Amino acid sequence: MGRRRIILNAFHMNSISHLMHGLWVRPGNRQADYTDLDAWVELAQILEKGCFDALFLADPFGIHEVYEGSRDAALRWGVHVPQNDPLVLVSALAHATKHLGFVVTSSIVQEHPFNFARRLTTLDHLTKGRIGWNIVSSWVETSWKNMGHGGFPPHEERYAQADEYAEVVYKLLEGSWEDDSVVRDRATGIYTDPSKVHSIAHEGRFYSVPGPHFAEPSPQRTPLLFQAGHSERGKSFTARHAEGAFIGAPTPQLAASHIRDVRAHAAELGRRADDITFFTSALVVVGGTEEEAQAKARAIDEQLQVEALLVSRSDQLKFDLKGLDPDAPLDTLDFSRQPTDFRAKFEAFRAEGLTLAQAMRKSATRRIIGTPEQIADTFETWQDAGVDGWNLSYATTPGTFVEFIEGVVPELQRRGLVQIRHAEGTFREKLFPQGGPRLNDRHVGAGFRRVAEPIAAE
Amino acid sequence: MGRRRIILNAFHMNSISHLMHGLWVRPGNRQADYTDLDAWVELAQILEKGCFDALFLADPFGIHEVYEGSRDAALRWGVHVPQNDPLVLVSALAHATKHLGFVVTSSIVQEHPFNFARRLTTLDHLTKGRIGWNIVSSWVETSWKNMGHGGFPPHEERYAQADEYAEVVYKLLEGSWEDDSVVRDRATGIYTDPSKVHSIAHEGRFYSVPGPHFAEPSPQRTPLLFQAGHSERGKSFTARHAEGAFIGAPTPQLAASHIRDVRAHAAELGRRADDITFFTSALVVVGGTEEEAQAKARAIDEQLQVEALLVSRSDQLKFDLKGLDPDAPLDTLDFSRQPTDFRAKFEAFRAEGLTLAQAMRKSATRRIIGTPEQIADTFETWQDAGVDGWNLSYATTPGTFVEFIEGVVPELQRRGLVQIRHAEGTFREKLFPQGGPRLNDRHVGAGFRRVAEPIAAE
Repeated sequence: MGRRRIILNAFHMNSISHLMHGLWVRPGNRQADYTDLDAWVELAQILEKGCFDALFLADPFGIHEVYEGSRDAALRWGVHVPQNDPLVLVSALAHATKHLGFVVTSSIVQEHPFNFARRLTTLDHLTKGRIGWNIVSSWVETSWKNMGHGGFPPHEERYAQADEYAEVVYKLLEGSWEDDSVVRDRATGIYTDPSKVHSIAHEGRFYSVPGPHFAEPSPQRTPLLFQAGHSERGKSFTARHAEGAFIGAPTPQLAASHIRDVRAHAAELGRRADDITFFTSALVVVGGTEEEAQAKARAIDEQLQVEALLVSRSDQLKFDLKGLDPDAPLDTLDFSRQPTDFRAKFEAFRAEGLTLAQAMRKSATRRIIGTPEQIADTFETWQDAGVDGWNLSYATTPGTFVEFIEGVVPELQRRGLVQIRHAEGTFREKLFPQGGPRLNDRHVGAGFRRVAEPIAAE
Repeated sequence: MGRRRIILNAFHMNSISHLMHGLWVRPGNRQADYTDLDAWVELAQILEKGCFDALFLADPFGIHEVYEGSRDAALRWGVHVPQNDPLVLVSALAHATKHLGFVVTSSIVQEHPFNFARRLTTLDHLTKGRIGWNIVSSWVETSWKNMGHGGFPPHEERYAQADEYAEVVYKLLEGSWEDDSVVRDRATGIYTDPSKVHSIAHEGRFYSVPGPHFAEPSPQRTPLLFQAGHSERGKSFTARHAEGAFIGAPTPQLAASHIRDVRAHAAELGRRADDITFFTSALVVVGGTEEEAQAKARAIDEQLQVEALLVSRSDQLKFDLKGLDPDAPLDTLDFSRQPTDFRAKFEAFRAEGLTLAQAMRKSATRRIIGTPEQIADTFETWQDAGVDGWNLSYATTPGTFVEFIEGVVPELQRRGLVQIRHAEGTFREKLFPQGGPRLNDRHVGAGFRRVAEPIAAE
């Protein structure tokens, strides 16, 4: 049996810096042109021509201020700030491409689900079914405060709200307008059959939405759903909602275990193992020889801005890393006095004898470094562990993607691991070729559909 | 002294029907393709080539349900429903044009000002300063209910909220990032000087927003501001906030009086008469002869869907017109028993001896019908009354705009009334050539700017 194809997303952000902080200064790095539509359109066209599946736009919707208890370092080094909206970027890129998918990140704190659902439908129409939604609940405190909330709700509470948020969206997108509600009859002038458009009458803990949805059904109705959940509660959310799950596992073994967990949860909910595709991320550094690739990777590492990496990591750990000497070996720290998340993140780096600065550089993102053959081998290893696709990061944009497309994609295609051309159909059909453009019947969102009255056999 | 140039906007909606209900069925009317980006890009390019200033996208963000106490007729005839989001449409049109402005309507009920401000900044970046914002407070009850509000707040309360909403937006767009906050120094890697990015610490009746703004300053900072207020409170809101004011006056005399009122309010606030441009709307029907134009206009009128017009008018009047016989002359109604708004709207039509149906057709929008010369004469009359520009409606799109551009624009250009080519600069500079890209110092929003420390003379 041949291998399944690997799904390729470019992992990006409408901001001055995404993961490889400090590299925006590189000549030719168009990240510095993130406000310029031309740069984005160029990238989208490169990705489409290079057989990528999608552009995945992350969005922290917040400013990091755990490090030094201040936002100053985040601003200074451009750690996710300035940061622009991803949703309004999409239509220009959709018009300049035919097959590329677009995953937009939008947090439950950012927008009321009623208005957001209309935006999703509009984007799904304008892209002809090429939109995906990365559901997040914002782990940055400033996100919540700026939206009028006193502060950060507890983890469990955010997931409860996220579940209800998704439910409102499903009700609007799946359950409000029946498939044959839009008549579009030019002879009578009737556009919609009102008897087939329904209120959703949602009354919940967080939202009260009578409906109906204001927009008519789009090609996918619900966009392709992405989610990244690492805690037990997060995994169960992923199992319930995600069609694309993002996992950060450090090794293929841990990825396999994470994937098994999520699939077990999903099976309990009546979903099938292949109803969820799993993604992880990496920066691929390709060279004609391994030495050349390693030298390129070292040059990238040296240019990383350590303090910027500390800013982003402090926020993630909710622990201010400012007090620690970045150049002291990690094993000079009393690990027993550090928080659990810190120990979990840095234990392996300590064993390697790294300093905090070295650990920061190393953990900015996973690296896959080598010749095209070596890289393809690594992709196969991760595929064997159950990873279906990659959110590929970059040192420069579009430079890193161009190198990957010219250097690695041909080898992956030779092995049958990457598509030679895009399939027809919506984003969902491209990822799940056996299904249709809509959520499959096993997905929780499908439960909110109106079942048409059976037509009596004649 | 020559005449000032007239500003031309196409008045549109991301929906199946905007003002001329029933006409979506016309062959070649691409309104029926409102979900298709190609149709929008085609329109934008036609408008830009035809020397229009902007595409003005209205958005009711609500479904009409006053008529018959039901949404059924609105759905049946497509009266503003299905209705899609205008904001996510813009970037594709901006990438396909160079000079055309884009006015997006967004209601204060629709989105929290913090997230909305970031969307505005993003759009202003992506369009290189060609975005405008039409501030509305939603007069459709379903808008408020679906966003989790019990119902429709009182008129005065909505304006109070709109004032605060605008204030939050100004604080974020004007007062958070100083002009020289973004350093973008590739040598040191410093992107932003954190000492020049400020919290806004907004604490008001409706919103609590610490800030800072997440996005760096865009070409215009605050988009060009449009507003339509007809009540006394509305006029004072316009006088305070608007740079483009939309007025619905039925005659040039009433327009002149409305404009005088708003300008008097504005003067009290320290603004100058020419700080506000005034717009009204019309459907222009052009013919080689007056008879030809009148015949075209009659054919349009006959195709209007009377019930659809009653749906939209009932919502506007907050009075169900269903009970009235559309084919009975208006003077058979007991006007003393009708509400004030109804009498104000229909008194003149009664005097003309029209039926309700005839009045509906006539009042769908103002018509300017005739030869290019006659139309240009009418434009001059309205200009003499103080009208600076037009939101031009359409019977078919882009057909009506093509006819206007080919038939009327050359005559207007011959008279020096319409630009021959676009000026350089942002949307604001194109409309106010004497000023810069930013809000002028007399505008309320400018009061939220941080004044840089004066630099000592050397």
